Amino acid sequence: MNERMYELGAAPSAIRELFAYGLARKAEIGADKVYDFSLGNPSVPAPDAIAQAMAKALELPPMQLHSYSPAQGAPACRQAIADNLNKRFGTAYSSDDLYLTMGAAAALDACITAITNPGDEVIANAPYFPEYRIWIENAGCTCVEVPTRSSDFQLDVPALAAAITPKTRAIIVNSPNNPVGTVYTRENLEELAAMLRAKEEELGQPIYLISDEPYRELAYGGAQVSWVPDIYADTLVCYSWSKSFSLPGERIGYVLVPPAAADARRVYLAVCGAGRVLGYVCAPTLLQKVIADCIDTPVNVEPYVRNRKLLTDMLDDLGYEYIEPAGAFYLWMKALEPDAQAFSDKAKGHELLIVASDSFGVGGWVRVSYCVSEETIVNSRDAFAALKADYE
Amino acid sequence: MNERMYELGAAPSAIRELFAYGLARKAEIGADKVYDFSLGNPSVPAPDAIAQAMAKALELPPMQLHSYSPAQGAPACRQAIADNLNKRFGTAYSSDDLYLTMGAAAALDACITAITNPGDEVIANAPYFPEYRIWIENAGCTCVEVPTRSSDFQLDVPALAAAITPKTRAIIVNSPNNPVGTVYTRENLEELAAMLRAKEEELGQPIYLISDEPYRELAYGGAQVSWVPDIYADTLVCYSWSKSFSLPGERIGYVLVPPAAADARRVYLAVCGAGRVLGYVCAPTLLQKVIADCIDTPVNVEPYVRNRKLLTDMLDDLGYEYIEPAGAFYLWMKALEPDAQAFSDKAKGHELLIVASDSFGVGGWVRVSYCVSEETIVNSRDAFAALKADYE
Repeated sequence: MNERMYELGAAPSAIRELFAYGLARKAEIGADKVYDFSLGNPSVPAPDAIAQAMAKALELPPMQLHSYSPAQGAPACRQAIADNLNKRFGTAYSSDDLYLTMGAAAALDACITAITNPGDEVIANAPYFPEYRIWIENAGCTCVEVPTRSSDFQLDVPALAAAITPKTRAIIVNSPNNPVGTVYTRENLEELAAMLRAKEEELGQPIYLISDEPYRELAYGGAQVSWVPDIYADTLVCYSWSKSFSLPGERIGYVLVPPAAADARRVYLAVCGAGRVLGYVCAPTLLQKVIADCIDTPVNVEPYVRNRKLLTDMLDDLGYEYIEPAGAFYLWMKALEPDAQAFSDKAKGHELLIVASDSFGVGGWVRVSYCVSEETIVNSRDAFAALKADYE
Repeated sequence: MNERMYELGAAPSAIRELFAYGLARKAEIGADKVYDFSLGNPSVPAPDAIAQAMAKALELPPMQLHSYSPAQGAPACRQAIADNLNKRFGTAYSSDDLYLTMGAAAALDACITAITNPGDEVIANAPYFPEYRIWIENAGCTCVEVPTRSSDFQLDVPALAAAITPKTRAIIVNSPNNPVGTVYTRENLEELAAMLRAKEEELGQPIYLISDEPYRELAYGGAQVSWVPDIYADTLVCYSWSKSFSLPGERIGYVLVPPAAADARRVYLAVCGAGRVLGYVCAPTLLQKVIADCIDTPVNVEPYVRNRKLLTDMLDDLGYEYIEPAGAFYLWMKALEPDAQAFSDKAKGHELLIVASDSFGVGGWVRVSYCVSEETIVNSRDAFAALKADYE
């Protein structure tokens, strides 16, 4: 028995725990009485094109549809993704640069496992998605937390520079960001890239950026999501259609190893090797067909745009402080006491489910997921007001 | 860069390599001129019930279909599996004993990761599926190979007893067996169980059987596939619908931790923890719906029964020696020289693709996968005859 695995299984993440509490509470007092802002489950239905592509795929002979694909994914699907990226970003990727995965979790885990050795260090920009630490530690590495800038939660490049050692293999960036909802500016990423190039030179070894991008298409209010490999060559991109196409349960995503990255071919093969070690075999073949078919379908961000406005208008009205959300579907709100968990617990008393920032590696804030129905936001007003009143 | 991952990615398994060679060769000289017995890709189409269940699932609101399920799988799917097992094996499993996975690979990897610590030993019965070693070594453990009985390839219980040390955490059994096609007899498994119970007593700690069962329903000629947890309580079952329902690309399977197994609740939670560490999140939700719907659909073994007869009749005729195949869709044939790889290479010269036993941990044999069309078997006769003639 592995005690660490037991602990990870026995102690679900704070997010999942709050979500489970919410389900139970809804069953108890009625779904409309609980304002559940806990989870990142998209509230926009998958595009119609997905169901159409699935129905079309079902017309194929079953063996053509359901047989193993190559471990890295069907060439046709990888080519469709490369074409789509090349069209959008003026790049020249080929199908051989792509390794399909069961979502971004598998993509990140494979990248970390591929490019590190036990004893290495991987930097996470806090606040960060808590599973990063689990994957980094499983590879035998140290998860080094570097806080983002306290003013605007952009990357703190001087702090990152100070944290880099000869053992640093990678830095994980996630923009649009979970949990903060920030989008890193081009200037911020360029400052990072310049620093990293200097450090690579100084240390004589590559430092990879692992760009975790499931929210790439979810940006609002004119925020531009830069194509990170354009700014810094040694970037590995991890993507998932979980959020953009609202397919989180179906587990489909990819790793892109751009050919300009250091040791690109060897890193790509190491990602394939990591996939074997992690038990992946291949991404679900039906979803591979669907993605190849639907890749150019526009992402519907309108409901999130509306939710964002409803939520920020309401919080402005009530006098809450928060970071202006630029992407993803999260709002990062200042807790009204230093202990974010106590604040989240107090919110629960008003049937308001918001995740304490502690589980993302920083104190003093809460994450409000606005991938919910409009009614949930509208109807939560009294609860947010009562929570505020508790502190006045 | 992790050199081990690179090597695993750069050196595909011998099976995959031969399969890739076959694809290229077919493109060169025509598919009907290459007799490809290399891969375990089912040749029976998925049952009609699968396509019907998929079409039915597509009528659900997309968010009900595609949202995250709990990490261990949707309760309704786990309950359907428990009900099916209870009906077939007279057991009393509950949904809480099941953890859904992306196929048997993920199930095995999660089990090994859950119950071992670095430095432990896990025993594989040779010949064995080569990825076992990769998963065992990734958990920091030693893969201890114990040859099965040379006469009939049943488990060699005295040899297993001799290989057990205080570090032995688990033994992997796979019946019906890949690559040999044997089904372990009830007597053989009972002898194993008695030995293991005595060893557990002696060592004062559990030794788990990990029962890898993707071929459970594929048994012929009256072979009985025993329900292993009935014979030995400390058994974890790893299953996949890849072979029985011909869905290898879709990645759907499970781990069953029977409640009577030692530390069952803690092992179950450790499997959940291992899933997090390995980046699994949840099994594809569409497939979870489909399995819940189709679980009682009978498995169509008739094509394999016919293929098995065609192949064994032909090999008898030509005077080849082999182990009588009782299950799965593999035939284990004696190489006509001690060097199985040289024999497989010579077969290639006759456009006959059969996998050398070396990659399964033993010398002197080849694996003939008969999950092929009947014509492939019939038309391969001259090639098998010419190969035989090479050694006369």
